[in-house]
Amino acid sequence: MSKTIDFYFDYSSPYGYLASRRIESIAKAHDRSINWNPILLGAIFKVSGQAPLTSYPLKGDYAVIDFSRSAREHKTPYKHPENFPIGTVAACRATYWLAANSDADMANKTGELVHAFFKAYYVDGQDLSQTEVVLATASSVGIDTSALKTALGEKAVKDQLRAAIENAIERGVFGSPTMIVDDEMFWGNDRLEQLDRWLSSGGW
Amino acid sequence: MSKTIDFYFDYSSPYGYLASRRIESIAKAHDRSINWNPILLGAIFKVSGQAPLTSYPLKGDYAVIDFSRSAREHKTPYKHPENFPIGTVAACRATYWLAANSDADMANKTGELVHAFFKAYYVDGQDLSQTEVVLATASSVGIDTSALKTALGEKAVKDQLRAAIENAIERGVFGSPTMIVDDEMFWGNDRLEQLDRWLSSGGW
Repeated sequence: MSKTIDFYFDYSSPYGYLASRRIESIAKAHDRSINWNPILLGAIFKVSGQAPLTSYPLKGDYAVIDFSRSAREHKTPYKHPENFPIGTVAACRATYWLAANSDADMANKTGELVHAFFKAYYVDGQDLSQTEVVLATASSVGIDTSALKTALGEKAVKDQLRAAIENAIERGVFGSPTMIVDDEMFWGNDRLEQLDRWLSSGGW
Repeated sequence: MSKTIDFYFDYSSPYGYLASRRIESIAKAHDRSINWNPILLGAIFKVSGQAPLTSYPLKGDYAVIDFSRSAREHKTPYKHPENFPIGTVAACRATYWLAANSDADMANKTGELVHAFFKAYYVDGQDLSQTEVVLATASSVGIDTSALKTALGEKAVKDQLRAAIENAIERGVFGSPTMIVDDEMFWGNDRLEQLDRWLSSGGW
């Protein structure tokens, strides 16, 4: 069984989006698989005492500039969403539901679904907080939306997301993206190079 | 007159310290001089609604790990101070006073003084919030400490720091380190590579 990179992110986090487009090549270079862990920063910020990045005076203005500048640097399409930030509970639940699918071919589509959700929000300008956007996006990658629609209301699926967020907090996750490898934690799209060097060198 | 890199930092900021050890080679590569602008994040956080990094649950614990890990990566000596964070008003005033010195040879020692203050706090474990540490450190780089001691109590010197902080806020500075080149702002030790590429390419 290959080692993993635990990748925590909020679908409403631009840096989570940027990192999601870069993490797979790093994982591949080090023969690691990715655990996609969408979380809700709103729940985590209640513990960590933070607020949405763009809500801070001065820092928020810079952040909006930095989102686009960093995206341009990495040649990643990025359109700052009109509705930002948003709650992405349905997208999170859909992701965990798919990852736990008993059909391995379906479960293996989890990464593809993550990319499709991010693209819907940051490239196509769709409001990912809306369940119909989540369903239509899932459909576009070949997911049975009637099964998904039912799943989104099920207690077991809701519990899965709640447990994932509690687990993230227990591990010390406070922001998006966060990468954990062999119990070493890295936070930020701007830590991917460091993560890559860490995996190459075995730490320092 | 060569172009500048306006380098804003708090002496109590580990990332400011790490960046201070790397900014000169970047400035040199692009034929720029550095304006050393120490600031007091405490004053800025009142505007930006932030708190000292290590005061946040979860995020603070990670930060302490990241300070040391980033320092080791850059082979920079770093000992997390026992008393942290601290107020560095005397060190800030000393820096602006020296930079404005009518003797150009003295004013040119400003960068050297910045490095000496950071070293006192992050390498030698001295409490840079104390005026006697500021004076002894200034003395070690050849500064007349009796003149400095007098200056630290002068209204003009106090006003200089206050104006510098107000100017920083007007320009949107909210954290340490912040680098401004040609009105483009970069925040963070982890933006130095991007700043370097920006200066090489003329932006993107």
